[in-house]
Amino acid sequence: MALSGGHLIDGKWRRDGGGGFNCFNPATGEALEPKFAEAAKEQVDAAMHAAPFALHDSASLEARWPARLLDSIAECILKLGDSLLDRAGAETALPNARLISERARTVGQLAMFAQLVKDGAWVDAVIDTADPSRKPIPKPDIRRMFRPRGTVVVLGASNFPFAFGVVGGDTAAALAVGNPVIVKGHPSHPGTSELLASAVLEALESQNLPRGLFALLQGRSHELSAQLVTHAETRAVGFTGSRQAGRALFDLAAARPEPIPVYAEMGSLNPVVILPGAIRDRAQAIARELCASILLGGGQFCTKPGVILVFGPADPFVNTLQQQISATGPVTMLNQPMRDSLAARVLEWSKIPGVDVLTASSPSGFASVSPALFHTRAAVFMREPHLQEEAFGPAAVVVECSEIDDAQSVLRCIGGSLTGTIHIGPDDDAKPILSMMQELVGRIVVNGYPTGVEVCDAMMHGGPYPATTDASMTSVGAASIRRFVRAIAYQNIPDDLLPPALQNANPLGIERTINGQRTKARIEQSRV
Amino acid sequence: MALSGGHLIDGKWRRDGGGGFNCFNPATGEALEPKFAEAAKEQVDAAMHAAPFALHDSASLEARWPARLLDSIAECILKLGDSLLDRAGAETALPNARLISERARTVGQLAMFAQLVKDGAWVDAVIDTADPSRKPIPKPDIRRMFRPRGTVVVLGASNFPFAFGVVGGDTAAALAVGNPVIVKGHPSHPGTSELLASAVLEALESQNLPRGLFALLQGRSHELSAQLVTHAETRAVGFTGSRQAGRALFDLAAARPEPIPVYAEMGSLNPVVILPGAIRDRAQAIARELCASILLGGGQFCTKPGVILVFGPADPFVNTLQQQISATGPVTMLNQPMRDSLAARVLEWSKIPGVDVLTASSPSGFASVSPALFHTRAAVFMREPHLQEEAFGPAAVVVECSEIDDAQSVLRCIGGSLTGTIHIGPDDDAKPILSMMQELVGRIVVNGYPTGVEVCDAMMHGGPYPATTDASMTSVGAASIRRFVRAIAYQNIPDDLLPPALQNANPLGIERTINGQRTKARIEQSRV
Repeated sequence: MALSGGHLIDGKWRRDGGGGFNCFNPATGEALEPKFAEAAKEQVDAAMHAAPFALHDSASLEARWPARLLDSIAECILKLGDSLLDRAGAETALPNARLISERARTVGQLAMFAQLVKDGAWVDAVIDTADPSRKPIPKPDIRRMFRPRGTVVVLGASNFPFAFGVVGGDTAAALAVGNPVIVKGHPSHPGTSELLASAVLEALESQNLPRGLFALLQGRSHELSAQLVTHAETRAVGFTGSRQAGRALFDLAAARPEPIPVYAEMGSLNPVVILPGAIRDRAQAIARELCASILLGGGQFCTKPGVILVFGPADPFVNTLQQQISATGPVTMLNQPMRDSLAARVLEWSKIPGVDVLTASSPSGFASVSPALFHTRAAVFMREPHLQEEAFGPAAVVVECSEIDDAQSVLRCIGGSLTGTIHIGPDDDAKPILSMMQELVGRIVVNGYPTGVEVCDAMMHGGPYPATTDASMTSVGAASIRRFVRAIAYQNIPDDLLPPALQNANPLGIERTINGQRTKARIEQSRV
Repeated sequence: MALSGGHLIDGKWRRDGGGGFNCFNPATGEALEPKFAEAAKEQVDAAMHAAPFALHDSASLEARWPARLLDSIAECILKLGDSLLDRAGAETALPNARLISERARTVGQLAMFAQLVKDGAWVDAVIDTADPSRKPIPKPDIRRMFRPRGTVVVLGASNFPFAFGVVGGDTAAALAVGNPVIVKGHPSHPGTSELLASAVLEALESQNLPRGLFALLQGRSHELSAQLVTHAETRAVGFTGSRQAGRALFDLAAARPEPIPVYAEMGSLNPVVILPGAIRDRAQAIARELCASILLGGGQFCTKPGVILVFGPADPFVNTLQQQISATGPVTMLNQPMRDSLAARVLEWSKIPGVDVLTASSPSGFASVSPALFHTRAAVFMREPHLQEEAFGPAAVVVECSEIDDAQSVLRCIGGSLTGTIHIGPDDDAKPILSMMQELVGRIVVNGYPTGVEVCDAMMHGGPYPATTDASMTSVGAASIRRFVRAIAYQNIPDDLLPPALQNANPLGIERTINGQRTKARIEQSRV
């Protein structure tokens, strides 16, 4: 399939807009064809204009249309076959095996959300029926359910070109609950974005759904992101990326005449605390496994363990970790600016008094870098703000603590993270660290590693700032739809005017909460 | 009981802080004793310092301690008896019957949240058990539940001195899920605030709970609110009041180094659309009932219907409404600034070309004003931004529309509201208006009136900006706790380190979702 280099707006590929840019193969530095158009205000307006019509038109469809759409998108993605894997490989330098597993995860996410739609209980229908005889005033009939928020903007991530790309978790969650989605593709992999968008278009066409439900805009500029976030039609934003970019978008959204939520999943230090008993018990194994976790995907995971807290010198552990890291060859990062950014950060760290370079990192090739490992003490870590910022890529810092209080201070200094990990050995008292992590992170892992985020009902992929801009939300798993819904209550509405999910006969056959009881039963009583 | 005029901080009444202020009886203009201290940074810091210790200490208590606290607070409020009603009456000019019913609602809210805690399912425990044999990688055990966010600041409302005051809905919801709460009492009724806080203190003492779980700070200044919202310890804010104040607090919170949510429930126009068939069918009845709704509580309800859309001249309805409004005597408002603000707004409206004054309003006494009614056409309403702002108090505007399109444009121009009401008569097609209201409001009422917010599971008291700062949240009903919780996931955590709500044996006996099934069963399988 030849790439158009254009935007997908209201079901049509358009190559208009300003400029034009190539992306690069990070392994070779080769500029990849074609040149991609850059969306400007006109293209943003066109996509934003189409979306509310699509939302309106879809409201008259049978309630479970998003399931058909998501299942069909998954099918169309798989149909792209090697063309998708090859292009993504060229644009990201991610190995084919990783891309295959990420594609499986992406298709799995789409299936999970489709299943959620088929089940139907996600609308969280809560019905309190009337009691006309209540004193002193009659009790009205109130029925509440989730509805789509409206147009959702998704800014695709660089590091998961499929799973958090054009039809990644954010898009799937927003579409599942019926919102139109406008995606800004990440400029590192525009060809991958176009291929994925073509799968969405094919699905919309095959299911005969409004084309305005989905748009892809290509571009490199911060201005494009800003236009999308500040557009009057935008109701919510999903973002995965750096703290700097996420905060900038959050600030723009908060300053709008009508503020909207930006659900930004940003950088995270993901502290790992290895208690003394665990070091005594299994220092070598933890060091080997932790090294694999640090370097998974070239260290380019938002859950990468970036700070490791140990008690005392912990030599057996630190030495093994150092050997493992040092024995690893250069990693090709997702793009050159990211590599340069990592190189600059580790150079900065290496100059901080009190920081030991255990494994020196060096850039190579177009976008490659060898992994880096640092060591310091708690007091140094706490007084150096630069050490407390994420180094995105293959790098980590071991922080030596003298006691639990020390480790707690370091954790508080790190602040919000997506994850916190504790390795516990015989006789270790994990409670003080666990208790503090409950205040600071979204997911606590014991005797394991934070990379590898299970896509399931119970997942919480989020956490206090700066991990995200909304600590109450997850961007992975079924609960991630909560970002893109809004509840509405209907008071004394005639049955035929209610959405099907709330009608007496329960025509969708979904589980609802009626007067405090969860049930699939219909409501027999006559309405007020 | 003699009032101290002080703040309640960590279980002690303190009269320190700057200044000192009296409040006034709005019916007479009399300054009420005593003078109340004004909290400054020192008092804010003291309350903020005590709160995290209280949170930490309460974590080791049996899980359902908030139920004991809330039930005890309700009991202590009732024990205050006439002293509370008398003081609130003097400070607000609200009639005794209204205060008695509002007290009943407040006690009812506390009981509802206590029941939620006793039931225990509010933690939304979701458990996906491990599958060590899954390929290609083993499935971990993931368990998620809601936890308290941390210190919550509540800024009490003026118009519901009990139900949205010191221990109103926001405080009850935040305490129910285990958060410490710091309340800034509304300066219009500081004595009422002190009495309610004394009930909380008595409950904390009788239940032997950490005193730092609750604080009351008195003061009039915006600076005090700003200090509370920007304090590093604050995790979330509940606010009920004007759009201007709510937005200012939202902006402060968004600009923090670590942004926090401000759940502001602000002004609302609460449009009422009366379709032609309803006018033909029951113009007189609607006019009488609508007049009662507009004037309920002196028009000082956030759900007061402020804009009434009719089709054509609709004389029988408009004339009756005008007669009803004109026949009503002056209303004593909650305080003088509010009365002055209403008087200024209606004066402004009366000067707008194309706006007819159906009932002229005039201020009287210290804080009284007679009700006002205006009439205009859709085109005028849409071009005059001042008409689109809430007039808090006994005033409303009838907007004459020529057709449904016209009404839809007016609704879009009004934007977000807490409620939208439609009166439907024989042969009326309500769908176009209903469909638009689904985009714009939090609660839709048919053939009824928006005032009187039922406290129940299904209630949604919220709506798109400017009704609130977070359209996905409600500030009334059981779901209002969602504002004050944050989910945490636990991955492969040993059973004895898990919170009781997530342990295999289900020691709390709560309903949980285990591998997709809702159940109260224990988990029998061995853990990874």
